[in-house]
Amino acid sequence: MKREFDVLFAHNEFKAEAFLDELRGKKPLFVLAIATTETGKIPGISAAGKMPEFTDYTPPADAELLLLGRCKCINGVPVTPDGIPTPALISMSAIRLADVPVLVCSGGLKVKPQIPFMDLGGNPGMDIRTGNSVDNVQEIIDRAIIAGENLAKGADYLVIGESIPGGTTTALGVLSAMGIHAMGKVSSSMPENPHDLKAESVKAGLAAAGESFGSLRNNAVQAISCMGDPMMPAFAGLVMGAASEVPVLMAGGTQMTAILSIVNALKADVLCNVAIGTTRWVTADRSSDICAIVKEIADVPILAADLDFTGSRFDGLKAYEKGIVKEGVGAGGASIVAMATTEGAVTKEMLLRDIERNYALLMGLK
Amino acid sequence: MKREFDVLFAHNEFKAEAFLDELRGKKPLFVLAIATTETGKIPGISAAGKMPEFTDYTPPADAELLLLGRCKCINGVPVTPDGIPTPALISMSAIRLADVPVLVCSGGLKVKPQIPFMDLGGNPGMDIRTGNSVDNVQEIIDRAIIAGENLAKGADYLVIGESIPGGTTTALGVLSAMGIHAMGKVSSSMPENPHDLKAESVKAGLAAAGESFGSLRNNAVQAISCMGDPMMPAFAGLVMGAASEVPVLMAGGTQMTAILSIVNALKADVLCNVAIGTTRWVTADRSSDICAIVKEIADVPILAADLDFTGSRFDGLKAYEKGIVKEGVGAGGASIVAMATTEGAVTKEMLLRDIERNYALLMGLK
Repeated sequence: MKREFDVLFAHNEFKAEAFLDELRGKKPLFVLAIATTETGKIPGISAAGKMPEFTDYTPPADAELLLLGRCKCINGVPVTPDGIPTPALISMSAIRLADVPVLVCSGGLKVKPQIPFMDLGGNPGMDIRTGNSVDNVQEIIDRAIIAGENLAKGADYLVIGESIPGGTTTALGVLSAMGIHAMGKVSSSMPENPHDLKAESVKAGLAAAGESFGSLRNNAVQAISCMGDPMMPAFAGLVMGAASEVPVLMAGGTQMTAILSIVNALKADVLCNVAIGTTRWVTADRSSDICAIVKEIADVPILAADLDFTGSRFDGLKAYEKGIVKEGVGAGGASIVAMATTEGAVTKEMLLRDIERNYALLMGLK
Repeated sequence: MKREFDVLFAHNEFKAEAFLDELRGKKPLFVLAIATTETGKIPGISAAGKMPEFTDYTPPADAELLLLGRCKCINGVPVTPDGIPTPALISMSAIRLADVPVLVCSGGLKVKPQIPFMDLGGNPGMDIRTGNSVDNVQEIIDRAIIAGENLAKGADYLVIGESIPGGTTTALGVLSAMGIHAMGKVSSSMPENPHDLKAESVKAGLAAAGESFGSLRNNAVQAISCMGDPMMPAFAGLVMGAASEVPVLMAGGTQMTAILSIVNALKADVLCNVAIGTTRWVTADRSSDICAIVKEIADVPILAADLDFTGSRFDGLKAYEKGIVKEGVGAGGASIVAMATTEGAVTKEMLLRDIERNYALLMGLK
């Protein structure tokens, strides 16, 4: 696989290389789209919280960590049931090393972060098994487009990340409603990917909505309304508004394929300005297949930060090498951006040292 | 008075000229700080609404006009009781001529705008006559500082405007609590400046709070809490966060002197990076004296857009020459920025033509 700095060109090599070239030495803005959904509380679906209710705190805590360097709405940092820390640690370290400005946008939250954030007018998401999971989709998209257009005027390019527990399940929901074959291909924050549980939840949702596989192929707004989460209209609108003016790196794992499908349906002409940025843990994952899903939608390039925590002195970070967490809060994209902005001066080794330092500091470790 | 483009150096000429030079051809970000306060509903205090209750709609409507080019939460545009249109028309025309990005921040609102906006965690303001007018001041300031720091990374400089009916009365309140002699010197959106009514309201507020003139000289946060409005901690925090990194043009009339007093008390070292940008209607106003108030606090330069609506074909705009409205929504600063960004290609004549075009379009005039 071709590479430059510590960035792998995981799919569509030539375009990926050209895209990275465009970012070198430029001034990015990192936007984090957050939301919560009851879908993330389906038992066994997400590793984002110790308890289902904790998933309401994960996105605001991630946003606080990114912007302030520490959480306010919880103690410490978000962790999985096994104590593995949030990927926001990676994103925070990366954007601080490269001095990248951050803006947080909410598509709908149960718990609000104690930081400045942009409200896009949405509500917290409902369980997709009801077939009615997001309110107000068109309005959130319209507002996010306006925000994206304005933010693009103040940056050379945008990198957009997400935080929403349960997000790969809602991604599977939207992809299925839009006729994309993603069953068994979306990734998971857990080492054992609960594909069956996700598939069941999506089937229940489609049935409850009176829809079927592909029946909303030409209605992305309705697909989100029935089967998505509130992060999606925020994220997709930001991409549509910004990518008509500047390059946009969509920072995330297989959830990005749902965004891709939405943008492809609503404003395909901006996709020439779009790439997906993720981690090696996602592109190398055997329990999911981001490339296969992307190919079925629109063949944008995929870049992957070649992060390697094998040698970490902390078990909580080493666990990433076992396929736990993998991605989130734009961790892969933020790492790519840190490398590109500094023309490679930020390496994966430097990043790991900084992540370890921040982890120790925030968790009171030595 | 010295001038460059159609900008007057109204106070502190040499610094004003140097400040304008710094902005030439650079990339600004326009931030609008909005909030509402019950103070604006004191009968006779503000021209911002037809009825006191309408003042809850003015700031969100102004923000919508700025970002979308039209209002959503009301029909048409905000007007005074005599039908004189909001200065947001000027700001909107100016920032569109110069393609300036816009971000809206709320310090506390009763009616939310139907656009993307940044929430700084505040509540709508109370009547200053209670002596307890703003909740949560320190928290809003802290969040606004974080926002200002991040926004400054994505722009060459910031221009910050405000929209809050009743704002000169709360300005007088904070200035008085902080020991600045501003009685009879704050401006008004009405041709007859109700100085007595403002003074009475401030006296009532100070008494209710158990404070007196100058008793909060060293406690800006408490001065805002007792006598201010929620726009102030948002605006002041943005200035403190941004001006430590880039120049900041505080866009407004005599309300800016209250912000100046707050920033001077909390972070005076950033003031070398700060100027006030307003309109000729404010600096030439005989019923107020912005320069005198500024001199008493910290001698920052004042720039004034030399707008001239004498020759307008619309009575609603001609009325600005009679001292109605005068300033607001950063109209003067936005005009200065449009001229500076385009190196003078945007003139006051061009601006008036564009304002007339937008006014006719939005009001259905011919």
